Amino acid sequence: MLVQSKPYRTIWPHPHNKEVVQIIDQRLLPHEFVVVDLHSVDEYATAIRDMYVRGAGLIGATAGFAMYAAALQSRDDHFAGDMQKFADSLVATRPTAKNLSWAVERQLAAVQGLSTPAEKRRKSFQVACDIADEDAAFCKRIGEHGVTIIREISRRKGGGPVNILTHCNAGWLAFVDYGSATAPIYEAQAQGIDVHVWVDETRPWLQGARLTTWELKEQGVPHTLIADNSGGHLMQHVLVDLVLVGTDRTTCCGDVANKIGTYLKALAAHDNKVPFYVALPSSTFDWQICDGVADIPIEERSGDEVNLVRGLSAHGLTTVAISPAHTPAANYSFDVTPARLVSGLITERGITKADKQSILALFPEKG
Amino acid sequence: MLVQSKPYRTIWPHPHNKEVVQIIDQRLLPHEFVVVDLHSVDEYATAIRDMYVRGAGLIGATAGFAMYAAALQSRDDHFAGDMQKFADSLVATRPTAKNLSWAVERQLAAVQGLSTPAEKRRKSFQVACDIADEDAAFCKRIGEHGVTIIREISRRKGGGPVNILTHCNAGWLAFVDYGSATAPIYEAQAQGIDVHVWVDETRPWLQGARLTTWELKEQGVPHTLIADNSGGHLMQHVLVDLVLVGTDRTTCCGDVANKIGTYLKALAAHDNKVPFYVALPSSTFDWQICDGVADIPIEERSGDEVNLVRGLSAHGLTTVAISPAHTPAANYSFDVTPARLVSGLITERGITKADKQSILALFPEKG
Repeated sequence: MLVQSKPYRTIWPHPHNKEVVQIIDQRLLPHEFVVVDLHSVDEYATAIRDMYVRGAGLIGATAGFAMYAAALQSRDDHFAGDMQKFADSLVATRPTAKNLSWAVERQLAAVQGLSTPAEKRRKSFQVACDIADEDAAFCKRIGEHGVTIIREISRRKGGGPVNILTHCNAGWLAFVDYGSATAPIYEAQAQGIDVHVWVDETRPWLQGARLTTWELKEQGVPHTLIADNSGGHLMQHVLVDLVLVGTDRTTCCGDVANKIGTYLKALAAHDNKVPFYVALPSSTFDWQICDGVADIPIEERSGDEVNLVRGLSAHGLTTVAISPAHTPAANYSFDVTPARLVSGLITERGITKADKQSILALFPEKG
Repeated sequence: MLVQSKPYRTIWPHPHNKEVVQIIDQRLLPHEFVVVDLHSVDEYATAIRDMYVRGAGLIGATAGFAMYAAALQSRDDHFAGDMQKFADSLVATRPTAKNLSWAVERQLAAVQGLSTPAEKRRKSFQVACDIADEDAAFCKRIGEHGVTIIREISRRKGGGPVNILTHCNAGWLAFVDYGSATAPIYEAQAQGIDVHVWVDETRPWLQGARLTTWELKEQGVPHTLIADNSGGHLMQHVLVDLVLVGTDRTTCCGDVANKIGTYLKALAAHDNKVPFYVALPSSTFDWQICDGVADIPIEERSGDEVNLVRGLSAHGLTTVAISPAHTPAANYSFDVTPARLVSGLITERGITKADKQSILALFPEKG
């Protein structure tokens, strides 16, 4: 998508050295646009853990390239053991994101049958590129399927603006391109459908205030920033036509782990009969789990992310404390929205109800 | 309650000049504790509008003293007309808060029968003091009634800590003393019941992060700060025993207008069978309104409060921008929680179900 009118992806091999990968340091957005080079597995792990990169698809794509770095760093005579160790360290960085382990396992499986380390390294680079390209292609298709929902609401409203509420950033910055929740919005914009996006600021990390606003602005999509507390009031007053969010892990029964607070918006949507859709490439499915509340591990991050807020002041990028010194704070990163509150899942293969039978009908090979 | 171990109220006549009233500038808490003198109706209006003071009871008490200032400023030969103009300007400062118009009308009614401006001014001072004293006394009684709920949960848990989630600040800082939602908590603490409070930070104005944490800390009540997004997850995992909030306007049918986001917590409480109680002195009842969603006016404040966050940095109190420059933002201050989601109302007269019949049984004189 566009940054200052120039097309970008969120991750790409360095144009002059394919052993180096480049990313956007999303911690600095929207205030600074900085591209960072990644060389070693350690650097990749830091980029994922400290959220230079974040979001379901981008974590997966970064893990794909991280495993290529792992292949480059693994010793010829201890290749499999080294790879496994690197894999374990990467998977530990973000416990909730399904795409992380999915990409790591795909890489491990891809190189397993090959005989020489050189072959394995070549293959690993190819798989990393494939993961990134597929992520972009799948998001494009999510947009093509999801736009039908927006078009139908627009038709019912006689062409009036379709008000879409989104939480966190499931935009192109969370994937390789297009985004999941934003893909239908960008597609609607391309088709000339009038849309307006309510952007939840998404405390504590402010993915909405910092990233979703920024990418919608760069793309020219009308939007309004709101505190996370606002969505219920907006829905009560018929100011939301559709809730559209992403997911970091989706169970085979349709439960959805997404950014903390998503569940509250799903409850409000349900209470006000507002459709609540979740957009996802199938790489975020966890086919082993049905009950998300019981079985999806929820990442806990530092309480500093709650006690402190970073933004732009007269002194440049500045961190401010919003609470008394030494205030104990808890920081759960995700919550689980039960399938009963989900109107449907928008995948690269089409839209499905959020129940096991319907999901498996769309992905029969997982049955 | 205590500030650095010294008892304070939130508003009091100046010890050396009863024509001046003193308040705590709550915009600066928890970083600075500054007492401000109020002299004129204009200064009172600014203090209310710009939120030096806020919270149902404190807005009412401030409006009470503001009307005393109005009586001092009203011309002897245009007393009634001047008073009415001051009254109108005060009521316009915060449209949702019921206590504001309640206190203003009480003052207007009190002086109506009296003959001389001097008598009216004396009476007005007395009424202002009465409003403040009653607010404190009513909150104390709310604590005595409300603690029974906490004690019962504690008993059921075999004495384990009772985890109470609260939103915004309905603490003593929102009233004259004790608070509404906090009064049962302080009473529980006084009775030796083990309590722990989950404090919603309450964006955008951060009443929870700045004020509730501060007063709980000064009082020595164990607490943990959380992002507003967290409550649903905590309830799903049985980490909340009770939700306890305040209200800025309560309809005679039990609908509750409270800080934006309260409705989302009520939905989560309902979905997880967690009791959801609202604490209020009866001055917050609006006896003219039944349907809160349709009929309570909801204040909209500047989008700057969403786009900007103030806190303590290395440079002192600092404002940071969290979103791209010129991001459109909407800032609704309150939402309405329908009575069907409210387990009960804790008033100075006792606890009642949130329906018209039960409420009127407790306040028969309003029938």
